[in-house]
Amino acid sequence: MDVDHEEPALANNTYSITEIVGTSPDGVDAAVRNGIDAASSTLRNLDWFEVKEIRGHLKDGKVADWQVTMKLGFRLERP
Amino acid sequence: MDVDHEEPALANNTYSITEIVGTSPDGVDAAVRNGIDAASSTLRNLDWFEVKEIRGHLKDGKVADWQVTMKLGFRLERP
Amino acid sequence: MDVDHEEPALANNTYSITEIVGTSPDGVDAAVRNGIDAASSTLRNLDWFEVKEIRGHLKDGKVADWQVTMKLGFRLERP
Amino acid sequence: MDVDHEEPALANNTYSITEIVGTSPDGVDAAVRNGIDAASSTLRNLDWFEVKEIRGHLKDGKVADWQVTMKLGFRLERP
Amino acid sequence: MDVDHEEPALANNTYSITEIVGTSPDGVDAAVRNGIDAASSTLRNLDWFEVKEIRGHLKDGKVADWQVTMKLGFRLERP
Amino acid sequence: MDVDHEEPALANNTYSITEIVGTSPDGVDAAVRNGIDAASSTLRNLDWFEVKEIRGHLKDGKVADWQVTMKLGFRLERP
Amino acid sequence: MDVDHEEPALANNTYSITEIVGTSPDGVDAAVRNGIDAASSTLRNLDWFEVKEIRGHLKDGKVADWQVTMKLGFRLERP
Amino acid sequence: MDVDHEEPALANNTYSITEIVGTSPDGVDAAVRNGIDAASSTLRNLDWFEVKEIRGHLKDGKVADWQVTMKLGFRLERP
Amino acid sequence: MDVDHEEPALANNTYSITEIVGTSPDGVDAAVRNGIDAASSTLRNLDWFEVKEIRGHLKDGKVADWQVTMKLGFRLERP
Amino acid sequence: MDVDHEEPALANNTYSITEIVGTSPDGVDAAVRNGIDAASSTLRNLDWFEVKEIRGHLKDGKVADWQVTMKLGFRLERP
Amino acid sequence: MDVDHEEPALANNTYSITEIVGTSPDGVDAAVRNGIDAASSTLRNLDWFEVKEIRGHLKDGKVADWQVTMKLGFRLERP
Amino acid sequence: MDVDHEEPALANNTYSITEIVGTSPDGVDAAVRNGIDAASSTLRNLDWFEVKEIRGHLKDGKVADWQVTMKLGFRLERP
Repeated sequence: MDVDHEEPALANNTYSITEIVGTSPDGVDAAVRNGIDAASSTLRNLDWFEVKEIRGHLKDGKVADWQVTMKLGFRLERP
Repeated sequence: MDVDHEEPALANNTYSITEIVGTSPDGVDAAVRNGIDAASSTLRNLDWFEVKEIRGHLKDGKVADWQVTMKLGFRLERP
Repeated sequence: MDVDHEEPALANNTYSITEIVGTSPDGVDAAVRNGIDAASSTLRNLDWFEVKEIRGHLKDGKVADWQVTMKLGFRLERP
Repeated sequence: MDVDHEEPALANNTYSITEIVGTSPDGVDAAVRNGIDAASSTLRNLDWFEVKEIRGHLKDGKVADWQVTMKLGFRLERP
Repeated sequence: MDVDHEEPALANNTYSITEIVGTSPDGVDAAVRNGIDAASSTLRNLDWFEVKEIRGHLKDGKVADWQVTMKLGFRLERP
Repeated sequence: MDVDHEEPALANNTYSITEIVGTSPDGVDAAVRNGIDAASSTLRNLDWFEVKEIRGHLKDGKVADWQVTMKLGFRLERP
Repeated sequence: MDVDHEEPALANNTYSITEIVGTSPDGVDAAVRNGIDAASSTLRNLDWFEVKEIRGHLKDGKVADWQVTMKLGFRLERP
Repeated sequence: MDVDHEEPALANNTYSITEIVGTSPDGVDAAVRNGIDAASSTLRNLDWFEVKEIRGHLKDGKVADWQVTMKLGFRLERP
Repeated sequence: MDVDHEEPALANNTYSITEIVGTSPDGVDAAVRNGIDAASSTLRNLDWFEVKEIRGHLKDGKVADWQVTMKLGFRLERP
Repeated sequence: MDVDHEEPALANNTYSITEIVGTSPDGVDAAVRNGIDAASSTLRNLDWFEVKEIRGHLKDGKVADWQVTMKLGFRLERP
Repeated sequence: MDVDHEEPALANNTYSITEIVGTSPDGVDAAVRNGIDAASSTLRNLDWFEVKEIRGHLKDGKVADWQVTMKLGFRLERP
Repeated sequence: MDVDHEEPALANNTYSITEIVGTSPDGVDAAVRNGIDAASSTLRNLDWFEVKEIRGHLKDGKVADWQVTMKLGFRLERP
């Protein structure tokens, strides 16, 4: 899959990748969404995510929370 | 885990593996199901799937769509 | 992420890791939960899980069941 | 490939995975078979194996024994 | 990075991935381009590529040809 | 990979890679050969194979069949 | 292993992961500690580390310094 | 693996592999030793170990404990 | 990694690693250079890079742009 | 690895690892044995091998030869 | 790998694999060629190469040199 | 890797990589040092090392020796 290209074709965009862990008591999808919500409050131009690891905490024989490690890509703005 | 064996034990079946990306705005499970639905319209004897990658497109700080890369195994029919 | 530390700091706990496959006709989260439910009937002190593989069985072009391979960590009790 | 489904479709089976090293002076296939023979004397419901590593011991410039590390999956019985 | 989204947002596109080896006596970039040229004569809607392996054939102590294994993703057309 | 070079040096050949699972009740080598036999009935110019995974089905504590996942490379013919 | 949970159970914490290389002339443990010391002067809420790579520089046939690449996880504070 | 061969050459030994996490406030070596000490109280014939992961818990910008995940191989006794 | 050692031997330097995607319509080398150019406008003491992934966007059966994911290491300055 | 310990316990042996490809028209085991035979004509103290890759050359839809890449470990003699 | 087959079919050739790092101020292709040039001055029968890692040294925000780690395969001559 | 750059900038150095196993009864750091000591008696221009595997031999429930597999890089001298 590839980086989004809505800018003019000659633009040599650069993207930065950051790694976060989103968590949720509800499941994989919710943990991904929570992590992205938190990241989007400080990062602009978020463009894609990739899940790297799915794990979680168990308590009393149940999943207490889901922890999804993911990479987030965002376009660097040019000065 | 292993290939399904409903045929007689002496059959030396061969399976083929194809790789697809299913997508959905709803989550991981839905992206898997959408990809398999699309593949099953052209491939017969689909037998198993394996998720290889979970990623997606972000727009306005939200998941716009989920993209799940998976391998699909199907039994080759003998001539 | 790290092993939980609610015991006194001097305790050199040891954890054991076991590998299981949880299954469900419903999706990834349910397969994880089913596997943990089954394991918690025989293992005490379950502390964390890590998803290693997501796959499943296809029947008539649909997902018949989801199979999630995961590792489970639990604290060994001292004699 | 997928976990075998000879039980009724509604059953949410759980499988356990154990790791062993089978050995033989004769070759890869024999080392796999020896390991499974040994494991089957204590484990019931063995369902599949996966080879993880093939190695061996050399003596006087010859293979003295083959060592095949493999994972074995077996269905957990419900109480 | 992510699959291209020029279709309406509600479209649950499916992509197929194929693996090829492009070759060239000239270098990595040329081997990639040659492989894609050959593939594009039979595949429509090619969307992205990913390099998986770079290797080559040596003759008389020189690189005789470069061989780049890559995956190609293309959008499946709906019936 | 084992890309054969009997064609003139200037030829920029392209190869395609397909993935199959060969099976046999007899062992690893036989499963590889069975898979290649089945593939060669529909694919021409088969050039090399690479074993990706060795696993199998267990029944009554014995190997019921061996399943070898492999990639097959074949030269694309030019129009 | 899992992210620490001393906050109330309903909190959907997000963690960020950063990658550093700690160095020391003394050994693996010291290189890890030096890297964490340096990171902790600018990062708050450091929660866990994972070693990714151990390498080093050789001079005159001796280890001149140890270089340990590691990931550090820390809890993001909410605004 | 480190499979010791002091038994007669005809013996087709089988080994089992278990996975544990040893911990220590002191460093990598101590965490390995602590884990093996704990395991050796219940497992006989321990033969080799392999480190799989080195991580740990951070508190107040310092390593609070080291956590080393390792596999342990031990020879199965024959009935 | 390529950790430079021109500082006095007693210095326990720490390095930080960041991940970016450089792009170019021209090829792998140019995409690497473009990414480093963009990063060097905000990061000082850049010391080494490592290519992690080579991929790109296809349009009309041609490479529209090359996308090279790489890690960049730079020395942290001490306060 | 399979590091043999028949020397006195205080000996800090060092081992060297070399990588070879053994070939055979007959199968995996024979290719391993052929490679080790060839290596043992120049290397002394061969101690263990590890299979890294199994592949081969296809001709007329049949396996023409098996190619097994393996690592060989041997004890360095002290001066 | 690219094991050449111009010898008679019965020949059980053995190949050796060596690992080198080629460098160049100019780019990936040039670093590969430089490394192979250097190796070919001492190794005969070089047959194939495989790129394992692409990295480099940065100076003043530019690539100072490219470093390509690669494996080289060459046919062992029989005595 | 840690490729040293004290030579003039125009030099296209080539490095060779060798793989060894250092051992010690004392721990990881000592096993690394012992292996490098042994290697440095025959190899000149040793420049960097990378740890690939940490394992060891167990005897009577204790670590009898630590075995660290590592790669060593050294600069090839030009004729």
